[in-house]
Amino acid sequence: MPALNTDLYELTMAAGYFMSGKAHDVATFELSIRRLPDHRNFLIAAGLQQALEYLRELRFEQDELDYLRSLKQFANTPPEFFDYLGKLRFEGDVFAVPEGTPVFGGEPLLIVRAPLIQAQLVETYLLSTIAFQTTIASKAVRCVMAAGGRSIVEFGSRRAHSPGAGPLAGRAAYLSGCTGTSNAEAGMRFGIPVFGTAAHSWTTAFADEEQSFRQLQKLLGEETVYLVDTYDAIEGTRLAARLGRPLWGVRLDSGDLAAQGREVRRILDEAGLESAHIMATNDLNEKKIADLLASGAPIDAFGVGTELATSADAPSLSAVYKMVELQVGESHSYTAKYSPDKVTLPGAKQIYRYAGYDLLTLYNECNQEFQGEPLLHPVLAKGELLERYPALADVRRRTAKAVAALPPELLSLDRTTVYRVEVSERLQSLAGANADFGCSQPRIRIQHSPTINNQRSLNQQ
Amino acid sequence: MPALNTDLYELTMAAGYFMSGKAHDVATFELSIRRLPDHRNFLIAAGLQQALEYLRELRFEQDELDYLRSLKQFANTPPEFFDYLGKLRFEGDVFAVPEGTPVFGGEPLLIVRAPLIQAQLVETYLLSTIAFQTTIASKAVRCVMAAGGRSIVEFGSRRAHSPGAGPLAGRAAYLSGCTGTSNAEAGMRFGIPVFGTAAHSWTTAFADEEQSFRQLQKLLGEETVYLVDTYDAIEGTRLAARLGRPLWGVRLDSGDLAAQGREVRRILDEAGLESAHIMATNDLNEKKIADLLASGAPIDAFGVGTELATSADAPSLSAVYKMVELQVGESHSYTAKYSPDKVTLPGAKQIYRYAGYDLLTLYNECNQEFQGEPLLHPVLAKGELLERYPALADVRRRTAKAVAALPPELLSLDRTTVYRVEVSERLQSLAGANADFGCSQPRIRIQHSPTINNQRSLNQQ
Repeated sequence: MPALNTDLYELTMAAGYFMSGKAHDVATFELSIRRLPDHRNFLIAAGLQQALEYLRELRFEQDELDYLRSLKQFANTPPEFFDYLGKLRFEGDVFAVPEGTPVFGGEPLLIVRAPLIQAQLVETYLLSTIAFQTTIASKAVRCVMAAGGRSIVEFGSRRAHSPGAGPLAGRAAYLSGCTGTSNAEAGMRFGIPVFGTAAHSWTTAFADEEQSFRQLQKLLGEETVYLVDTYDAIEGTRLAARLGRPLWGVRLDSGDLAAQGREVRRILDEAGLESAHIMATNDLNEKKIADLLASGAPIDAFGVGTELATSADAPSLSAVYKMVELQVGESHSYTAKYSPDKVTLPGAKQIYRYAGYDLLTLYNECNQEFQGEPLLHPVLAKGELLERYPALADVRRRTAKAVAALPPELLSLDRTTVYRVEVSERLQSLAGANADFGCSQPRIRIQHSPTINNQRSLNQQ
Repeated sequence: MPALNTDLYELTMAAGYFMSGKAHDVATFELSIRRLPDHRNFLIAAGLQQALEYLRELRFEQDELDYLRSLKQFANTPPEFFDYLGKLRFEGDVFAVPEGTPVFGGEPLLIVRAPLIQAQLVETYLLSTIAFQTTIASKAVRCVMAAGGRSIVEFGSRRAHSPGAGPLAGRAAYLSGCTGTSNAEAGMRFGIPVFGTAAHSWTTAFADEEQSFRQLQKLLGEETVYLVDTYDAIEGTRLAARLGRPLWGVRLDSGDLAAQGREVRRILDEAGLESAHIMATNDLNEKKIADLLASGAPIDAFGVGTELATSADAPSLSAVYKMVELQVGESHSYTAKYSPDKVTLPGAKQIYRYAGYDLLTLYNECNQEFQGEPLLHPVLAKGELLERYPALADVRRRTAKAVAALPPELLSLDRTTVYRVEVSERLQSLAGANADFGCSQPRIRIQHSPTINNQRSLNQQ
C-alpha cells in the first residue's frame, strides 16, 4: 500500500487543500540534502528509479480510503475528497539529477512540479527512497575508494533496517562501484551480480571440516570459497591447499586479518595456488580496509556488511523536500524558508557543474550564460516517463567516471575541503526578496530574516 | 519475493545440504544480540509477529527458481533441488521471547528448530526483521522514559532506511510506549494511533498565515495543531490565541524550544487557552527531551523523527543466528563458536528472569529447579501458529510493566551497571565440552579455546 505509506499530515493537508479550493494550484517542490554529514566530502545521488516507479504507480485502494475515512482527523472532510483520492494519479513533471552523480549540500536532487495535492502527498516516500539509497551509495563509494581496485561485495542484508532495505542497499552499493551483493532478491530485481558460498554453520553441519570443504567444492567448483576460520584459520587454509583446485579462494572472518592474510597467502602459494584469492570479512568499513591495505595485507576482496548497509557513521541525511514555487490561478509565487539552520532558496533550480565548483541558478535562467554541465534533467512529463531507466551497470560506470572527475582532495576518506557551491546573481537576488523576475506577480514569502542575502557562496556546513 | 530476500549463501548451503543428503537433518538455531550497544542498558524485543508471518508465508515462486537456476553458483546443482525448493514450506518449531520483553546481550530472542535447509534459509530475513524492530523499540523506550509521562509521537518515516522501514519503525516505537506514529500505513496495518496535521508548506501555500490557520481549524477542529514557526513562532502563537477554540495546541519546530515554549505558554494562558497543548519537534532525541524538561520547558508532547527511526546513536545491533544443536539421524550434537569476541553457547536455551538478574539454562533442564520467570515460549509448532498474535496495545502495556520492573539503575539514559546474566551449571559444563548431558552421543564442536569455561557470569561487554 505505497499510497498510505506517508506521513498522515500529507493527507490532512491534501484534504485541506481540497476543501480550500486549492486542488488546482500547481506547486514546485525540491528535494535536497541540507548539508553533508561529517565524514562525507560528497554524496552519490541514488534511488531515482524507485522514486519514479512509486510516482507512476501511486494510487489509493478502497480499503485505504475506508481507513482514512475512519480517522478523527477526517471527520470534517467532505466525501468528495475521498472520491478525488480514489482517482488520483501522479500527473506532474519531474526533473532529477541522474543516479550516480556526485552531489553536495543544498543542491536539489529532484524537482517535482505538480498539482499541489499530488506534490505534497509524495513527500515522505520520495524522501525515504532517495535519502536511503543516497546514504548507502555515499558510504559504498568510500569503501570502493579505500579498496583501490580490489573487489567490495555488499554483505549487509541481515543488519539492514528491515528486510525491505536489504535489496535497496545492495542496489545502491553496486551503482557506487561494489562488485555485487549477497542479497539474492537484489540480484533478481536489479540484475546485480550476487555472491555467497557458505557460513560457519555449513562447516559445523558436517562431521568434520574436511567433509564440509569437499562437499562445498563439489557444489561450487571454481566458485568455491572456503570459510577457513571455523576452527582455526591456518589449519583451515592448509586443508584448502591440500584439496587444491577447483577453487576461487578462501575467506577470513575473525582475528588479525593482516597477519592471517600473509600466512594464508604463503600457504596457498607454496601449494601452487597462486591464483587463489583471499577474501576478508568481519565488521569492516572503509577505514579498516584502508589500514589493512596500507599494512600490506595480501587481501584481494572484501565483504562489507553492517557498516555499509546502515552507513553506520552517518546513518541519516538531512534530506528535505521544500516548496519553492506556487502557482495559484494566474498568480505565481516563490516560496522559501530562511531560518538560520534551515536555509532553502526559493525557485526551481538548475545545477551547473564546472571544474572544481558548482553553480546553482534558477532552472529557467538563460542557459547560454552557463558553460558548466547542467545536472538536472527532465525525467517525467505529466506523469509519463521520458526515457527508459538506464541499466544499472551503465549507472555504475557513470558513477566511477564522475567520481574520478572530482577534485582529488575530495577523494580522501577524511573530511577535507568543502566543495564550492555558488549561487547565481539572479537566484541571490530572488533569495534577497528584491527580485523582479519577469513572472506575473513574483512574490516571495520568507521566514525570519534572510541570512544568505549577501552571501555569494552557499557552502554546506 | 520474500523467499529470495536472503543472502545467497543460505541458498548455496541449502543446495549443498540437499546434495549431501542432509535435507532431513534437524538443526536448532538461536537468534541473539551478541552484546548491548553503547548507550543501552537493555533492549526491547520486537519484530516477532513479522518474523512469524514470514515463516508461515515462505515459498519460492517459479520465476525465483528460474533465476536461481541461471546463476553460476548452481551450475552443479541437480534439478531436484529446485523442485524441492518449489515445494518448501516452513515446518519447524519456534520458541520466542514475547515482543516488548526487556532483553540483554547473549540472550536468545528466538529459537528455530527445523529441517536444516529450512532453518538455514530463513537466517537473513529473521535477523533483519527482528534486529530492526528491536533496535527501534530499544531507542523508543529511552525517549518515552525521558518524556516522563508526556506523549512521544514517532515522526521518522521520511528519514527511515527506505519506505519499508517507516511503518515498522512506527510499530516498534508504539509498542515501546510512544503514543503513535505519523505513518498512515502503520496506522492501518497495525492499528496504531496516527497523528499529523500540517507542515510549513501548508502555511506557505496560502496568501497569509491567518488564512492557512483558519482553513486548518475548519478542517481539524479540536485536532488542530498550528505549526506556528513558519514566519515567527511568537507571532504565530498570538494568531493561534486570537483564533481560539477549537484547537489541540501549537507545534514549535525551530529555535530555542525551552524559551519559546515558556513564551508560548504565557500567550496561550493569557488568552484563556490553558488546555491548549504545546508540541515540540526538530531533531529531538531522548537527551534533548530530558534537558528540555529539566529546564522546566512547558512542553506537553514531542515528535521524534530521524534519531528514533534510525536509532542514530546505535543504528545496528550485533544480531546473530547461530546453530546450537544438530540432529543427524540418531546422532545429536551441540554446536557453538568460541572465538574471543564471538562467543556463543551451545544448546537451545531458556532464560529465567529473577529479581535483578537472568539465568540462562538449557531449554530442557528440569524447570522445577528454577523459580524465575521463563521468557522463551513456544510460538510455532511444525509451522503452525500456537496462538493468535497479541494485540499491539496489549504488547505496549506489557512492555511498560516489564520496563517498570527492571532494576531502577537500568532506567537511566546513561550507561550504568551491566545487568547480570548468569549461566546454569549444566550449560556451563556443556560449554566446557565436558558434559554428559544424557543425549545420544552428545558431541561438542568448538572453535578456538573456550574462554567462558570457568566463567560463572556471561556479562555483555
